[in-house]
Amino acid sequence: MSGQSVSAPPIVLTTDFGTSDAYVGVMKGVILGINPRATVIDLTHEIAPQNLRQGSFILGTNHSYFPIGTIHVAVVDPGVGTDRKPIVLETPAARFVAPDNGLLSEVIKGYLATSPAESFGSGRATLPPELQAHELTNPRYRLSEVSNTFHGRDIFSPAAAHLSLGIPCEDMGPPVWDVAYAPLPVPEVQGHILNGEVIYIDRFGNLITNIEINALSDQRLDLRTARTQVGEREVQGISRTFHDPESADSIQPDGLQLIVLFGSNGYLEIAETDGHASESLGVGVGTGVRLVCNP
Amino acid sequence: MSGQSVSAPPIVLTTDFGTSDAYVGVMKGVILGINPRATVIDLTHEIAPQNLRQGSFILGTNHSYFPIGTIHVAVVDPGVGTDRKPIVLETPAARFVAPDNGLLSEVIKGYLATSPAESFGSGRATLPPELQAHELTNPRYRLSEVSNTFHGRDIFSPAAAHLSLGIPCEDMGPPVWDVAYAPLPVPEVQGHILNGEVIYIDRFGNLITNIEINALSDQRLDLRTARTQVGEREVQGISRTFHDPESADSIQPDGLQLIVLFGSNGYLEIAETDGHASESLGVGVGTGVRLVCNP
Amino acid sequence: MSGQSVSAPPIVLTTDFGTSDAYVGVMKGVILGINPRATVIDLTHEIAPQNLRQGSFILGTNHSYFPIGTIHVAVVDPGVGTDRKPIVLETPAARFVAPDNGLLSEVIKGYLATSPAESFGSGRATLPPELQAHELTNPRYRLSEVSNTFHGRDIFSPAAAHLSLGIPCEDMGPPVWDVAYAPLPVPEVQGHILNGEVIYIDRFGNLITNIEINALSDQRLDLRTARTQVGEREVQGISRTFHDPESADSIQPDGLQLIVLFGSNGYLEIAETDGHASESLGVGVGTGVRLVCNP
Repeated sequence: MSGQSVSAPPIVLTTDFGTSDAYVGVMKGVILGINPRATVIDLTHEIAPQNLRQGSFILGTNHSYFPIGTIHVAVVDPGVGTDRKPIVLETPAARFVAPDNGLLSEVIKGYLATSPAESFGSGRATLPPELQAHELTNPRYRLSEVSNTFHGRDIFSPAAAHLSLGIPCEDMGPPVWDVAYAPLPVPEVQGHILNGEVIYIDRFGNLITNIEINALSDQRLDLRTARTQVGEREVQGISRTFHDPESADSIQPDGLQLIVLFGSNGYLEIAETDGHASESLGVGVGTGVRLVCNP
Repeated sequence: MSGQSVSAPPIVLTTDFGTSDAYVGVMKGVILGINPRATVIDLTHEIAPQNLRQGSFILGTNHSYFPIGTIHVAVVDPGVGTDRKPIVLETPAARFVAPDNGLLSEVIKGYLATSPAESFGSGRATLPPELQAHELTNPRYRLSEVSNTFHGRDIFSPAAAHLSLGIPCEDMGPPVWDVAYAPLPVPEVQGHILNGEVIYIDRFGNLITNIEINALSDQRLDLRTARTQVGEREVQGISRTFHDPESADSIQPDGLQLIVLFGSNGYLEIAETDGHASESLGVGVGTGVRLVCNP
Repeated sequence: MSGQSVSAPPIVLTTDFGTSDAYVGVMKGVILGINPRATVIDLTHEIAPQNLRQGSFILGTNHSYFPIGTIHVAVVDPGVGTDRKPIVLETPAARFVAPDNGLLSEVIKGYLATSPAESFGSGRATLPPELQAHELTNPRYRLSEVSNTFHGRDIFSPAAAHLSLGIPCEDMGPPVWDVAYAPLPVPEVQGHILNGEVIYIDRFGNLITNIEINALSDQRLDLRTARTQVGEREVQGISRTFHDPESADSIQPDGLQLIVLFGSNGYLEIAETDGHASESLGVGVGTGVRLVCNP
């Protein structure tokens, strides 16, 4: 967590709406109409359309850098207007206004792992005591007319704006005891080999995998001599920076210079020096990545 | 209108400048240099370059979701530096700082329809009494040097910043009695058939037409059994949501699943379930769309 | 400079991070965690990945439109995590938090030209007395954990947030006396001929060159009869606006309508009327442009 507690928490928007249409701007207009002093910022609006898994990853890995109490509005919502519930989830770190469709899975995951209350199966998780959720049913905290196709504007933004004015989560609607839960895949461990996969590709073409440095330290594996395999490529060693002078080993037979490092969120990344690894390797989300450590 | 009246109205930017260059950032810098406390937000900067019609549609359909008194800065301005006038238009809902080139047509349209003062012809409309406009000539409310190519920075942003400080529109320059007017085409009604067209395509590929639900209710048409035709496709019925369980009829002979619904702004939309209708159908802005209602 | 001095200067972000990932949003979260009242705006995040020259140009030509004292955070940082220093540079106009890798060259250039203290060679410049720089080493003004790959989040954003709270530059770390310096190329003058080049292409496809109107006025050249050559094209005269009625001469033999004008930042631009000059001419950054003035 990056800062002291804050009197007026920001509202942070994460959606798959893009910024070429007016959808995001209208959400901000609705928020400012309710709380003219709200601070509204964008996490990103370029979640791939209706890609819940990508949205869940972005929220899970980044929300801890915002002030405690931040109000996240997260809208990736293929089922808008159907019977999926709009909810607010409150954690010790933040509040999340979102559809109950699995978008908050990676936010919830950390709390489930340390709690005896977790209960999976059928794609839902019972909330542990540190987390509370409420359905957004109170008509006072919605626009007077609610469409069937744009709850970001009609339900989620008004709820966030009222929360930023100090309205408690409890006033939003009845409590919710379990939420949709679809966490990202976890690498498979076979002795000194981890079988993971690419879960995100960033603007620079870096391949971000689900192999976490925290998980590795539990395994007591020696990373200094690790080899990373993706497709037919193998990269020796793990670099410290994108231009590590000691990673000369990473030049491929065809001259491509690949490096492997643990990125700023703690995930193993494969990058191309001065290049776009995803394009050069023809690799996308879901491609397997194997980390082989020597015994 | 989504909120109570507000002491410090936001400044909302709508342009065709994109966000890859520094043009938008510089406009915000100029605004904050004049009013350091201004709240500046973006509606969108991805109006297609010099596309006045698209800009007019975006402003017309979305400005009512911002607080009363909001100051809109709208810059789609192919004639920058020529004799088209920079103006501020004041409506009961908001103020619009923009070139007088038709960009405000859809904002003005609603007021003309209910007013006896309208007068078309030659692409200009006389303003009805609810609307006032002034030319932006006062040098106190411009940058000291005005370029011929970037009035967004040199004229429109300074005017908006001064308006946000409480300077009245009247101080900006002499009154203007008529403005450029080029409204979007209206569907043609032939008995129970409406001939409209696609006027906007959003990020999701949804085809948004000029057929408005408000206009239909006047026609007393039965929508439950309506058929929508676009190109060689025909879609039966009108859905309530993007995933309407009752819209199984909408699967096309080739398996494409199209649905038709009234979108969040009240316009008839054609969408592809989990797909991009515009790409799948090869349909763009201007394509005819026919709504056939049974007698 | 566009405004009066300001009590709470804005923080302005310029990066090559794009906006599809969460990198920029996280920087804003870190800033608001330290200074909840900070005003944070974007200049652009679409600097081409790792393109220091483009970043330097954007900062140099646009920073003077922001309020005095503005805190710029500029991150184009191929060497993140290596031994290049993170610094803050203070000028009479603004403060710049950035890696010391040449990204601030065009900001510094104007001060060097009028100062006897300049000293080039080996790609570094000694700072003249008007400019001060400090290395960002003080751990109080960094996040508690600093990664090797995302100093925008861990070092630059926290520094900017603390500066916006009134912490002086001197507290950030030890003084730095010289900085990396790689200015943009300057046109070559041969009598009445200037040989410049394209240094930037904007969203509209306009070719922006390094030929500055200020430099020309020193040369006492007659611009009224100037001819501009790019590739095999030649354009007669210099227009005042993008739609100059007097520039009929500029229609090319194949019908393409090119115009040449001095753009809003004072650089010679080649534009296509209602078109995208860069695509139509197949011209990119680095292409030579020759301005021929009659004697």
